[in-house]
Amino acid sequence: MDSQIAPEGRMEVLSKAEVSKLLDNSHGGLYQVFRSCALAVLNCGSGLDDGKELLERYKNFDISIVQRERGIKLDIKGAPALAFVNGVMIKGIQEHLFAVLRDILFMNAEMENSVATGIADRNKFNLNSSEGITDAVFHILRNANLLRPQVNPNLVVCWGGHSISGHEYDYTKQVGYQLGLRNLDICTGCGPGAMKGPMKGATIGHAKQRIAHSRYIGLTEPGIIAAEAPNPIVNDLVILPDIEKRLEAFVRIGHAVIVFPGGAGTAEEILYLLGILLHPENEGIPFPLIFTGPDGAADYFHQIDQFIASTLGSQAQQHYQIIVNDPVAVASAVEQGIKQVREFRKQKGDAYYFNWMLKIDEEFQRPFEPSHENMRNLAIHKNQPQHILAANLRRAFSGVVAGNVKNQGIRAIEQYGNFEICGDPAIMESMDALLSSFVAQNRMKLPGKAYTPCYRIIK
Amino acid sequence: MDSQIAPEGRMEVLSKAEVSKLLDNSHGGLYQVFRSCALAVLNCGSGLDDGKELLERYKNFDISIVQRERGIKLDIKGAPALAFVNGVMIKGIQEHLFAVLRDILFMNAEMENSVATGIADRNKFNLNSSEGITDAVFHILRNANLLRPQVNPNLVVCWGGHSISGHEYDYTKQVGYQLGLRNLDICTGCGPGAMKGPMKGATIGHAKQRIAHSRYIGLTEPGIIAAEAPNPIVNDLVILPDIEKRLEAFVRIGHAVIVFPGGAGTAEEILYLLGILLHPENEGIPFPLIFTGPDGAADYFHQIDQFIASTLGSQAQQHYQIIVNDPVAVASAVEQGIKQVREFRKQKGDAYYFNWMLKIDEEFQRPFEPSHENMRNLAIHKNQPQHILAANLRRAFSGVVAGNVKNQGIRAIEQYGNFEICGDPAIMESMDALLSSFVAQNRMKLPGKAYTPCYRIIK
Amino acid sequence: MDSQIAPEGRMEVLSKAEVSKLLDNSHGGLYQVFRSCALAVLNCGSGLDDGKELLERYKNFDISIVQRERGIKLDIKGAPALAFVNGVMIKGIQEHLFAVLRDILFMNAEMENSVATGIADRNKFNLNSSEGITDAVFHILRNANLLRPQVNPNLVVCWGGHSISGHEYDYTKQVGYQLGLRNLDICTGCGPGAMKGPMKGATIGHAKQRIAHSRYIGLTEPGIIAAEAPNPIVNDLVILPDIEKRLEAFVRIGHAVIVFPGGAGTAEEILYLLGILLHPENEGIPFPLIFTGPDGAADYFHQIDQFIASTLGSQAQQHYQIIVNDPVAVASAVEQGIKQVREFRKQKGDAYYFNWMLKIDEEFQRPFEPSHENMRNLAIHKNQPQHILAANLRRAFSGVVAGNVKNQGIRAIEQYGNFEICGDPAIMESMDALLSSFVAQNRMKLPGKAYTPCYRIIK
Amino acid sequence: MDSQIAPEGRMEVLSKAEVSKLLDNSHGGLYQVFRSCALAVLNCGSGLDDGKELLERYKNFDISIVQRERGIKLDIKGAPALAFVNGVMIKGIQEHLFAVLRDILFMNAEMENSVATGIADRNKFNLNSSEGITDAVFHILRNANLLRPQVNPNLVVCWGGHSISGHEYDYTKQVGYQLGLRNLDICTGCGPGAMKGPMKGATIGHAKQRIAHSRYIGLTEPGIIAAEAPNPIVNDLVILPDIEKRLEAFVRIGHAVIVFPGGAGTAEEILYLLGILLHPENEGIPFPLIFTGPDGAADYFHQIDQFIASTLGSQAQQHYQIIVNDPVAVASAVEQGIKQVREFRKQKGDAYYFNWMLKIDEEFQRPFEPSHENMRNLAIHKNQPQHILAANLRRAFSGVVAGNVKNQGIRAIEQYGNFEICGDPAIMESMDALLSSFVAQNRMKLPGKAYTPCYRIIK
Repeated sequence: MDSQIAPEGRMEVLSKAEVSKLLDNSHGGLYQVFRSCALAVLNCGSGLDDGKELLERYKNFDISIVQRERGIKLDIKGAPALAFVNGVMIKGIQEHLFAVLRDILFMNAEMENSVATGIADRNKFNLNSSEGITDAVFHILRNANLLRPQVNPNLVVCWGGHSISGHEYDYTKQVGYQLGLRNLDICTGCGPGAMKGPMKGATIGHAKQRIAHSRYIGLTEPGIIAAEAPNPIVNDLVILPDIEKRLEAFVRIGHAVIVFPGGAGTAEEILYLLGILLHPENEGIPFPLIFTGPDGAADYFHQIDQFIASTLGSQAQQHYQIIVNDPVAVASAVEQGIKQVREFRKQKGDAYYFNWMLKIDEEFQRPFEPSHENMRNLAIHKNQPQHILAANLRRAFSGVVAGNVKNQGIRAIEQYGNFEICGDPAIMESMDALLSSFVAQNRMKLPGKAYTPCYRIIK
Repeated sequence: MDSQIAPEGRMEVLSKAEVSKLLDNSHGGLYQVFRSCALAVLNCGSGLDDGKELLERYKNFDISIVQRERGIKLDIKGAPALAFVNGVMIKGIQEHLFAVLRDILFMNAEMENSVATGIADRNKFNLNSSEGITDAVFHILRNANLLRPQVNPNLVVCWGGHSISGHEYDYTKQVGYQLGLRNLDICTGCGPGAMKGPMKGATIGHAKQRIAHSRYIGLTEPGIIAAEAPNPIVNDLVILPDIEKRLEAFVRIGHAVIVFPGGAGTAEEILYLLGILLHPENEGIPFPLIFTGPDGAADYFHQIDQFIASTLGSQAQQHYQIIVNDPVAVASAVEQGIKQVREFRKQKGDAYYFNWMLKIDEEFQRPFEPSHENMRNLAIHKNQPQHILAANLRRAFSGVVAGNVKNQGIRAIEQYGNFEICGDPAIMESMDALLSSFVAQNRMKLPGKAYTPCYRIIK
Repeated sequence: MDSQIAPEGRMEVLSKAEVSKLLDNSHGGLYQVFRSCALAVLNCGSGLDDGKELLERYKNFDISIVQRERGIKLDIKGAPALAFVNGVMIKGIQEHLFAVLRDILFMNAEMENSVATGIADRNKFNLNSSEGITDAVFHILRNANLLRPQVNPNLVVCWGGHSISGHEYDYTKQVGYQLGLRNLDICTGCGPGAMKGPMKGATIGHAKQRIAHSRYIGLTEPGIIAAEAPNPIVNDLVILPDIEKRLEAFVRIGHAVIVFPGGAGTAEEILYLLGILLHPENEGIPFPLIFTGPDGAADYFHQIDQFIASTLGSQAQQHYQIIVNDPVAVASAVEQGIKQVREFRKQKGDAYYFNWMLKIDEEFQRPFEPSHENMRNLAIHKNQPQHILAANLRRAFSGVVAGNVKNQGIRAIEQYGNFEICGDPAIMESMDALLSSFVAQNRMKLPGKAYTPCYRIIK
Repeated sequence: MDSQIAPEGRMEVLSKAEVSKLLDNSHGGLYQVFRSCALAVLNCGSGLDDGKELLERYKNFDISIVQRERGIKLDIKGAPALAFVNGVMIKGIQEHLFAVLRDILFMNAEMENSVATGIADRNKFNLNSSEGITDAVFHILRNANLLRPQVNPNLVVCWGGHSISGHEYDYTKQVGYQLGLRNLDICTGCGPGAMKGPMKGATIGHAKQRIAHSRYIGLTEPGIIAAEAPNPIVNDLVILPDIEKRLEAFVRIGHAVIVFPGGAGTAEEILYLLGILLHPENEGIPFPLIFTGPDGAADYFHQIDQFIASTLGSQAQQHYQIIVNDPVAVASAVEQGIKQVREFRKQKGDAYYFNWMLKIDEEFQRPFEPSHENMRNLAIHKNQPQHILAANLRRAFSGVVAGNVKNQGIRAIEQYGNFEICGDPAIMESMDALLSSFVAQNRMKLPGKAYTPCYRIIK
């Protein structure tokens, strides 16, 4: 299908200079990223989780910016037909497309530039400093109109696998429903599975309570969006430049985190958050964190819990609570936890919409490039502070995600073979067991295809 | 659970006289109806479809009106716990409760009175004339704020069984989704099954198109509400006094009707509508009517179609279209049909919000009491105009519904045995076949219980 | 100018029966009232205060109801050109016209009927009982959507002359401005002078405080509307059937009353309110009442105060406060007074939007027909309870207003000569002095014409 | 009065870096500008038009930024009491204060910096190029949320004196009223007199037509704000850095311009706009321009017309229309003109909210410093293109305005004596006559003080 669409909101009123910059960016190196993200957004609802396959299926897809005196339009050719009704593109998908334009060609371009030149004081963002990275995350979120003052803390981040069983999926909906009944909003990675269920459940809960203007926030990144296309309920989509800024966005804006069963990506998220909470400077900052799943998830979380115990130790175990098969208990625990967060922020004068006080070590902020070399050289041992070990373990799982579903990662594996991960034998043992169980439980990829591992644990 | 709740909207500003009248009504004969409807609303989501059982389970449930100088409150004792979150009644259920109060104690009381005295000029409504009944329906709907001027025709009535298979249920969601994508609103009998699926689907469609203020209208009646409790998505609930006024409300406010597979109630609805459309005065009035179901429903609709052919003839068959397993085609046909409705109303100067021009014969308006005697004496033969035969067939199925799920009907069957239905042997043959297939397909009651017929066909 | 206009709001969705009733009413005896009120509304801004003259100037003016299947339209011929811009009638005037239709042909017709038949139990309103009259006032106001729950008391009734000096007019604006700054809404008799100034001032105050949805309520009556045409700021216009119901409406919905200088009408209002406040049953009910005017009004209010002292006694003087030339003090006193009103209503459980607890004696509710005979027979002496004397004094001033500006009154004076008012000599002396001062101060009619008294005091 | 206030809107969500920058700015050279603008805003309604006097009267006034983790507050000490009601600052004044903060410390600081360094590529705005200046104006306006897409052209700029007669003031209200009745919004320099009257009139017109969300835009500059404090009706206040950017903002966002009688500032505005419209590249761009005033303004505009004829020639006279004493004709002409503007922009694809196509020569954009030397050296003769002569004449009047009411200008005159203006004798003759008439007509300063000229025409 072909179409021309006009922006609403932030991209409607652009200066002449901004329009030319957009046009320049759209012809430069960012075009491929822009095109593939746009395609992913247009392909929503198709049940595909492979970025490479998607690009190959829609070879003739093209998207370009048309300049008008009064602004811009997007010219789209060869788009998936599912995105249209009676020849008109679905409104929510239009919004998502302009979110892509805003975040890839407008915001990220600015950042890209900062990275490229590396000259901090010449650019808006100094991406070589921790403060600069946080500032960039703040600006991306504010530019997406995500930071709303005068609103009480009510944002629950839900993490978990995109490939989960129907039983688990129903459970995420039930939890979402209980959250919705309690006027809590949802933020997820915005793909299918555990990223979609809580939003669907919350929608019903909000409807029952006649709550209008609920927020269903999706945070994604260019590398993952094709594999985890934003589901239609998401009414605030933001594409962060990389997984590190995306994870930082989650913990800066979320007031509580729920982790559902998942695979390597979920493990990455857990390690990221525990690594931050273990940082000495963050002691005393309340941060509700709950692991939950339906009947039968007890084993799963036991395994995760053991992995954490054996790598990061019992101190790390203090930071979360495991609740099995009890959506009401989960929602109540979250509600209680957020009350404490509110009290704390009020007392400290911190913003409700952005967790400025949380210290995120640069180790967690610097983008990790999962090349074969970098993967092999990860320092996975216990002769380092816990939060640094957490950072390195996080990177290992991050690489596995890239090899599984990200276009670039898949191509690297095709070319150079599996990643090799090595380190402290005991930790390797644990990691192998964990990853193998993810494979056995079908958590690595959407069902229907046999999973071929992209990694090799060197014990 | 116990609670006190205050009204919003129409019941907030009452005169002293109105408050005393409400109190009087609540202590009189209407109390039982009021109580059982309130209980049904509070019990939403419990998966019970038996009004008698519901009343027995919550024997201690009590609801009463508390008078304040500034208005009223509802005092509730012994309510189902599901209706509350953290001790506070869910907002949507509160609204439904006040809809019950408004329609049972306020509006219906006025009507009840008109019926009782029978002295037309002394009362607001003359329920002995066709115009008077239509006027009453109009006032009930307007008093419920359902009639909205300045809105283009977009209301799709969805009929179908409360007990349908999961496969059929998913199909009703898909149809609803396609309707929602086309900015169409939904009106149903507001119970589970085919009355809920289209609303759920439309919710997602509306969300994707960023359509706010969508309407999910539920029309019910005191006799059926316990068996088909309003689902939570319904944001406009109206309780009409009887099935005849409820059916009239459907066809006066709906701009198109979709029929999904169902049982006796669905057959009643089909016969009601065909009987009206066959009325000579209604010739030329566009009224889109579509029968649809998933793969496997072809046989079902073939059977219905044959029943109609053999009873009402081929002319009746011209009034509907059967579409199997094609949600997009259904939605497109509805869309097209509504365009014609709009053109017609515009040209004739008829209101969009109420189909004044449609002639509804008094035969279809007069309440039918499904007593054993009335059931036995139904004139089911071909020596009468088609639309009168349709009216009598409608009554036969109406009686079966009462015997299946309505409190009063169930008790009558317990006391006097099954209804006996007799008439023209050929028609009896067809009817028997149809009813038997409903039984075989589990369409009479929610699954899990064996169905014992409440009727006997005398051939 | 000619035009056709369609209603918005309450008159948009009418039943067929209601439309025919409206048509009937518009052809019956109510037509003249309807036509003259409509003309008055259309003539707004012309600076005419003589109902008779207005009707004579626009002899060819005609207004009629056009029936449509979907509702009604108003067909207007020969209307004042000032009501249109580029051939389109000003929106606010359209609203006022439909308020006239609603109140005269729809609501008042119902009441008229009740009056005519006098058979209480056959009609909606029993206008022979105090409760019935209050109920009628309640229904008229609710039908006009004037009674809003969930709103804190903030409605200030402003009374005073339609013919006041520029200096006094500016002062009413300043008081209105201070009220507006304090988020108080305004209700007046909706004509020019002291009925317009406070609204204009409040508009600026509300704008400065960024208060949206402020209410400028105008309460009028068919007899007076031509002389005191609703000013354009009024966004809620209600036409009560007679001065007695209009006065009751003021005191039932207002939370405080400010009296600016005025003539006979203002005196009538003061006596009405004092008569009520003096009723033994109203003891202890807070009701802020402030007399105020600019520099130079001190004498005026001294005279009023003396008149009250000499007729109703010192007890009556306890019910008001006189503040000269201090808009901030007036606004603060009102604010304080309303706080007490709120506390009182909260404690007693009375509604904020309608003062149910205030006892209004039937003497003040029964319509007074100012015929020559009735005027002559008024019992004006001290051998009666204070509040009954107040009621009779009120009637005397009411007659003078009718003779000055109401069409019917003017015609009666033309035919039979001046009204004669007699009674206790001391009271007559006071009254003569007061009325003479009104004449001398130009308060009886808009300036530019010599005033010829319509009354004669028999001492 | 002392107070602390928190921002709403754009200044609510600031990054840590932005907060520190604000604090820095508030302690640097911008503080004096910030303080005096804030004081001017707080002093609204006091009837003072002398920036110097204002600052001297409130010597102890202080305003500072208080840092919070979650944002900022403004701490205010010694503010004029008029800005408060019951100790709470009036909401509209709060908004104006944060507009000052936003435009002076946030936006202008960015620009100031650009000016200071003069290194274009290091900064956001290149204020040495015409495009760069236009870009800066665009960003200031967009940052103030003034540029709204999807709105039909309806913004009328009203220019004219701050010191006009009561008769003229009433006329500006009448014109504003007719504009408001036609759904036109108003933009002025936001001081008293001809800048306030049209807004007041339009308010009534909008109210009569029930138009909500009308816009009353005030564009001012730090130098003038004290003399022409924003009136309370202004609901969008922007402080542009200098008169040149302010004038550019007027012509970029306005869809038509009305000029009422005024003094030197009005002459400056007329010459600015004619100079632009005379630019060859602007031929064919529709720009409705109307000079109007009440009875008695005929002479005034005749004089202006003659001055234009004798300096810029008859071609310049083609660009405006003079209408005397006819508000309806003015409003109709504006309405017609804006229709053409809309057609033109639509056809050319230009934005409705910003007139990108209008060529503004750098001569009109470069800030003119009215020093004694610069004033004396103005090239006022006919040996130059008309639009350049217009630019220089504009500067001459700009200097006179500065000498009359701007703090800096007044101090310069006090120190060095009157400005000397010289040039082509014929032009000097005209200019002298014009300025003398302004003095004679009391147009230079608010009445009540004798006017002492700040200039000397050297013939």
